[in-house]
Amino acid sequence: MDSEMNIGFIGTGVMGKSMVKNLMKAGYTLSVFTRTKSKADEVIQAGASWKNSIAELARTSDVIISMVGFPEDVKEIYFGEDGILKNARKNAYIVDMTTSSPILAEKIYKKAHASGLHALDAPVSGGDVGAENGSLTIMAGGDEADFKKLAPLFSTIGENIVYQGPAGSGQHTKMSNQITIASNMVGVCEAMVYAKKAGLNPETVLESITNGAAGSWSLSNLAPRMLQHDFAPGFYVKHFIKDMGIALESAKQMDVTLPGLELAERLYQKLADAGEGNKGTQALYMLFDD
Amino acid sequence: MDSEMNIGFIGTGVMGKSMVKNLMKAGYTLSVFTRTKSKADEVIQAGASWKNSIAELARTSDVIISMVGFPEDVKEIYFGEDGILKNARKNAYIVDMTTSSPILAEKIYKKAHASGLHALDAPVSGGDVGAENGSLTIMAGGDEADFKKLAPLFSTIGENIVYQGPAGSGQHTKMSNQITIASNMVGVCEAMVYAKKAGLNPETVLESITNGAAGSWSLSNLAPRMLQHDFAPGFYVKHFIKDMGIALESAKQMDVTLPGLELAERLYQKLADAGEGNKGTQALYMLFDD
Repeated sequence: MDSEMNIGFIGTGVMGKSMVKNLMKAGYTLSVFTRTKSKADEVIQAGASWKNSIAELARTSDVIISMVGFPEDVKEIYFGEDGILKNARKNAYIVDMTTSSPILAEKIYKKAHASGLHALDAPVSGGDVGAENGSLTIMAGGDEADFKKLAPLFSTIGENIVYQGPAGSGQHTKMSNQITIASNMVGVCEAMVYAKKAGLNPETVLESITNGAAGSWSLSNLAPRMLQHDFAPGFYVKHFIKDMGIALESAKQMDVTLPGLELAERLYQKLADAGEGNKGTQALYMLFDD
Repeated sequence: MDSEMNIGFIGTGVMGKSMVKNLMKAGYTLSVFTRTKSKADEVIQAGASWKNSIAELARTSDVIISMVGFPEDVKEIYFGEDGILKNARKNAYIVDMTTSSPILAEKIYKKAHASGLHALDAPVSGGDVGAENGSLTIMAGGDEADFKKLAPLFSTIGENIVYQGPAGSGQHTKMSNQITIASNMVGVCEAMVYAKKAGLNPETVLESITNGAAGSWSLSNLAPRMLQHDFAPGFYVKHFIKDMGIALESAKQMDVTLPGLELAERLYQKLADAGEGNKGTQALYMLFDD
């Protein structure tokens, strides 16, 4: 795919702005739109052009990428009167990289397909650091030919880039990722609080358990922060709750019961209800350590 | 500690026999006792002497190590009329390496201390492979001086050897390990079954999620076995249920609620009730994948 093509990028938050910068570094021409214009200042300064509306951005882009907050935002920017689907050029590629609903991704795909557009769902993992370093994991759903066409573009912002299947498969893969994390976070918290109540030094316990069968990314990276009472995000509690809600809804539609995920969602919701939604996911420890 | 000293080893099952062999390789003199004599054939052939009773073994050993099945077995071999505490020589070291109850470990310590014996609880992780390679993780509780005295011995069967605190601390650390694993296993199973029901190829999903924030030992090592329907143990469901039961009892005594552990125990119990107690822990997937 021609690196001189025009990319329109919607959503220049923590993740989006780093992705935009990496795309520009790779030689792509970027225009941007985001709800709060000041959040685009940094990328505009770095060379991106500002567009006054999604419609304007859509009309002038060969590839449109969205990286916004919630499924409702995705719905609005795709299906609104001023939105992507009504205003994109024929044959344009539209890629939602937001972690969002698989069902919504299928809907976008169907509508796009009917309008001669190429739609992919391609959520990411790897967080702000991955976005900055261009080392995101990208999980893609849609038509495989479209995925292949955009693979060079994806490789400028990500490293582990895998085609997972038809529309919605990227989102379903991201849900599998979040489901795995959810129960593990509960286990990590419970182990740390157990160790503490048993009179052990939880840091010394980590020396024994981190590199064996109990080992995980969360145990290595988040348990030490729990013990230091460092609850800065990382990954926001409120966003994790959003993701778990999508996964639960999706599981319900598939008639699958996920009791571990249900429990994790309930515990995180309790944490958010206590006013801690803007902390990092490791703050779950606060619920147990009272 | 003198490598010409006599070690009495009780319990030559899968783990015990490898530990005995590694101790002999390091130059220690070993005598053994186990409930079913045929299970000691291999180590007797390799040079260990058979003792006809625990009492006989205890009376002739400088260090007594036990590696048996359940807390009830530990209770019996330590507190029985023919048991370790009544028959060990003064100043002997007695080390329970069974994964067992922290409360029982404290009781053994107290009784031992009153009889001029040195008691340690030192459960392990690392499984049959770790036992064979002498690379076990050893988590020790008891008096630190006693731990230091036995450190050279431990280093012939283990690699990550950590003193965790007073009597019971080794067992509490092992419980922290099992608590971490318990909820993670639930999450790994749920993610795999979600992926499958969503029509994804779960193996391809693993390519996307194994090396990121969802990553864990269980996801890397057990999820692929789940997907292959390879439920051979590894670590037995029935033993994991034992460990979770100990952890829950211990948590109750400390007045700590661990909902993730409770859920995992309930699910594994359901699996055992269905007749799958002799499968490996990855068999939890069977509950979800119906």
